[in-house]
Amino acid sequence: MNREQMIASVKSQMPERRWLHTEGVMKTAVLLAERYGEDPHKAELAAILHDVAKYWQIAKMEQIIREQKLNGTLLLYDKELWHSEVGAWVAEQEYGVTDIQVLDAIRYHTSGRIGMTKLDKIVCLADYIEPGRDFPGVESIRELSGQSLEQALIAGFDSTISFLVAKGKRIFPLTVDARNDLIEQQKTGG
Amino acid sequence: MNREQMIASVKSQMPERRWLHTEGVMKTAVLLAERYGEDPHKAELAAILHDVAKYWQIAKMEQIIREQKLNGTLLLYDKELWHSEVGAWVAEQEYGVTDIQVLDAIRYHTSGRIGMTKLDKIVCLADYIEPGRDFPGVESIRELSGQSLEQALIAGFDSTISFLVAKGKRIFPLTVDARNDLIEQQKTGG
Repeated sequence: MNREQMIASVKSQMPERRWLHTEGVMKTAVLLAERYGEDPHKAELAAILHDVAKYWQIAKMEQIIREQKLNGTLLLYDKELWHSEVGAWVAEQEYGVTDIQVLDAIRYHTSGRIGMTKLDKIVCLADYIEPGRDFPGVESIRELSGQSLEQALIAGFDSTISFLVAKGKRIFPLTVDARNDLIEQQKTGG
Repeated sequence: MNREQMIASVKSQMPERRWLHTEGVMKTAVLLAERYGEDPHKAELAAILHDVAKYWQIAKMEQIIREQKLNGTLLLYDKELWHSEVGAWVAEQEYGVTDIQVLDAIRYHTSGRIGMTKLDKIVCLADYIEPGRDFPGVESIRELSGQSLEQALIAGFDSTISFLVAKGKRIFPLTVDARNDLIEQQKTGG
């Protein structure tokens, strides 16, 4: 499957506005990859596929997570987190992606993880700041993204955590771990 | 050691203003115990001792955590968390407290934990809202404490998490787990 076929396939699985978001993430991820020395082709590939399962039925995602023995802890948390894990599986099974870095960037694009790769950070950050995003603080995260991938991503996680606190919702522990890890690395220069 | 001797001993290990805080926690913990059907004597005992190690030297706390094989994960996080774990050890070793509920209420008064007991919640919440406390939002937590121990404590954890986010500091994962668990229990009526 070539790039255009993949784009057409992904586009067909989501509403128009979500495809516009995906295009924004593609462009932003490529820019960040060029800025921070990552492979822009990997960044774009992960961006194309990152939300492929976003509009799949909840029951279908749950079935795949159970049957394929993916990370079942996700089922205890918000359904918004499921599409990332399922998306990585779909990228591998249906789109033939074999690059583990690309698959992981899809898998962790919502939650983050401890020890995020540069590609993980780029896709996750692009998802926060693509031009179509509009939430309190997004402009300052965009500004930070010109200076530090890590500082910008910490600010992105801050916005997620603050949103969940304000809404009285649970916080996915891996996101806190990811943020803690980034802060610790900044301190130690890691 | 009787109550007055214990109070004199604890008082001698902290500055005057911290002792005033401890007195506030004692009174508030007793009120909450009476309101929510917990033993006020246990609540007061845990409150008297909750900050006993707060002004101990960092090196001494670290040594006790290492030598006594207490929860070493704490050493990877903010020193502000250490005095609770050390305090529980001191309560047992030096003040002869044998009640595991009281010891746990001291141990988890800063972090919270999954499956908090009523006594844990009371001491942790009293530490947030005793009359001497003054931080953004404390008044609304005090108001909530008249309606729901759990909702008030969730609001307390919210304030801690928001503070750490604003300061760019790491969040102790157990606090997020504790908050998640309280929210989940509220949903399921547990």
